[in-house]
Amino acid sequence: MSWKDNLRKVHPYVAGEQPDFMDMIKLNTNENPYPPSPLVTKQLRQYDSKDLRLYPQADADRLRAELAQYYRLSEQQIFIGNGSDEVLSLSFLTFFNSDKPLLIPDISYSFYPVYCDLYDIEYKNVALTQDFRLVFADYCQPNGGIVFANPNAPTGLAINLHEIEYILQKNPDSLVLIDEAYVDFGGQSAISLLDKYENLLITRTFSKSRALAGIRLGVALGNEFAISKLYDVKNSFNSYPVDSLAQEIGIASILDQKYFDHTVKKIISTREWFKASLITLGFELTDSKANFVFVKHPKISGKELFNALYDEKIIVRHWQKPRLNDWLRITIGTDDQMKRVAQFLKQYLEERKK
Amino acid sequence: MSWKDNLRKVHPYVAGEQPDFMDMIKLNTNENPYPPSPLVTKQLRQYDSKDLRLYPQADADRLRAELAQYYRLSEQQIFIGNGSDEVLSLSFLTFFNSDKPLLIPDISYSFYPVYCDLYDIEYKNVALTQDFRLVFADYCQPNGGIVFANPNAPTGLAINLHEIEYILQKNPDSLVLIDEAYVDFGGQSAISLLDKYENLLITRTFSKSRALAGIRLGVALGNEFAISKLYDVKNSFNSYPVDSLAQEIGIASILDQKYFDHTVKKIISTREWFKASLITLGFELTDSKANFVFVKHPKISGKELFNALYDEKIIVRHWQKPRLNDWLRITIGTDDQMKRVAQFLKQYLEERKK
Repeated sequence: MSWKDNLRKVHPYVAGEQPDFMDMIKLNTNENPYPPSPLVTKQLRQYDSKDLRLYPQADADRLRAELAQYYRLSEQQIFIGNGSDEVLSLSFLTFFNSDKPLLIPDISYSFYPVYCDLYDIEYKNVALTQDFRLVFADYCQPNGGIVFANPNAPTGLAINLHEIEYILQKNPDSLVLIDEAYVDFGGQSAISLLDKYENLLITRTFSKSRALAGIRLGVALGNEFAISKLYDVKNSFNSYPVDSLAQEIGIASILDQKYFDHTVKKIISTREWFKASLITLGFELTDSKANFVFVKHPKISGKELFNALYDEKIIVRHWQKPRLNDWLRITIGTDDQMKRVAQFLKQYLEERKK
Repeated sequence: MSWKDNLRKVHPYVAGEQPDFMDMIKLNTNENPYPPSPLVTKQLRQYDSKDLRLYPQADADRLRAELAQYYRLSEQQIFIGNGSDEVLSLSFLTFFNSDKPLLIPDISYSFYPVYCDLYDIEYKNVALTQDFRLVFADYCQPNGGIVFANPNAPTGLAINLHEIEYILQKNPDSLVLIDEAYVDFGGQSAISLLDKYENLLITRTFSKSRALAGIRLGVALGNEFAISKLYDVKNSFNSYPVDSLAQEIGIASILDQKYFDHTVKKIISTREWFKASLITLGFELTDSKANFVFVKHPKISGKELFNALYDEKIIVRHWQKPRLNDWLRITIGTDDQMKRVAQFLKQYLEERKK
């Protein structure tokens, strides 16, 4: 026996490559192409670093108060964590302790089954249709909880409020967790359903629409009882996951509604012309409502396209997995970046024909 | 059945009170009384907030490189996490998966048994002596790992390198985790033993000696194999726990050795005269090597002293627990603050005699 025999066995995560070319176009991790609000810079310039000697507010109460106003919820309906990854992980730990399986779409955010393995939660992959649609009737079987992303990743496909309400009504005894990481780019948020369904929990992130992936801020929205339970679990073993600067920067971002609206609209409009131009080139696309498109060519493999783009220093995301194999996920960058991508693809297809 | 039946059961943590009086002296959470290095302020002023749109370096490689130089270790011997609480939690998850119990001193950091409950790790409390000494022969029984803090909390008592080496030698098949959160204030670090014992893992924090509790930076130091396993587990479910700003601020702090030495020395010298003046007043103290003292009065209960200090807006830490009941933990503040505390206690004892 050695201490090495007591190591936890994990599937080491193969991270998306993070190349660092001088003039690359990085469209592989759904980062926002625009900087965060200028109020964030102002906050950084005026922050009194003396305050960093003190522990942060454990429950980020000032940021909670700002978000409460922003979402028109009570402060007790809001949970703040270290990125939505931590909020999701804590939600799995808090709410999914049933002997019935958690239902998860078979194609969705790759960390959901990982949290299940981590916390010994039984789960069942529910198959999406061939065109990646969520069949909401499939979520009426016995379960210990339901998790899905809306819009979904990596497809960008969104479901509407009626479909969500159907799932909530059919599962009054299950917590339904909706990951709205991408909802600001055109999905329908379930926030308006929080009053009606106490079994609904929503997660959000500052990483995408607020261009703050660098500071790790995630949010859960739910009824006051559920949120209090989430805080109980968090505080039982981790008092201060969100640092003071992140809390202040989060507040600065929330206060600049105009900038937020402007950049989100810009990304949506870029996405829509980019989609149209790919369709013109003969690509197949899902109707993505996120800050990325999900795309394949009927005659060219995903791997070939990925490599061709990579050689041009255009970095997108590709998975060597059944069903996803032929698809690429391309983050929406600036207009200039996406023009270059469309132009290159056009040229590549033309030269390939010859 | 309701979703509320599937909630995880936890012992909700009763947080130390965080009062917010105008002119209080806050000596209850072992924060540093001095601000972080001026280089931290400089870093904040010049940081380009545009970079916040990007995800942080997942493994904090630039900060790792700085720390490698600082500790004279290889980069692969260094792990960075979201505060030492996260580093400890991940270490428990990674290394303590044995069917033999983890050994923990019965009086130590209160989160150790909490991590065990969280990850279903069997553990055994090993009793300290009546005067809070760790009996190192007690750590030779069969075990699935050993964890202790050096110096210990809340006693401040440190053990020396020979004692640590004894434990490491007697347990070649167990990972021995030493929490060195307070070691910079006068303990003997086990870093020099890392070359010799591959079963040694050390954790550190930027919260105490580096006055950066606000940004959440914790460190593990170990052999390259152990550190790679810690990263495997971390990366399997949580890619970006440490935000970009925290990484940059950590680097700025490491680069200012002179400021660090100056403030640490100052705290040690304040602690020593404060200890001496409490002894003069008739208090009993442990020989704390941390940035706090652990103190009781032979005739006055801990609760009474806590309340008397509290009424003076001097906030210290007290536990309603057997063995700790009569003790107070008082963080070392500035000279002025500690003079006020000593003066008040003197006056209180005199008036109580009348």
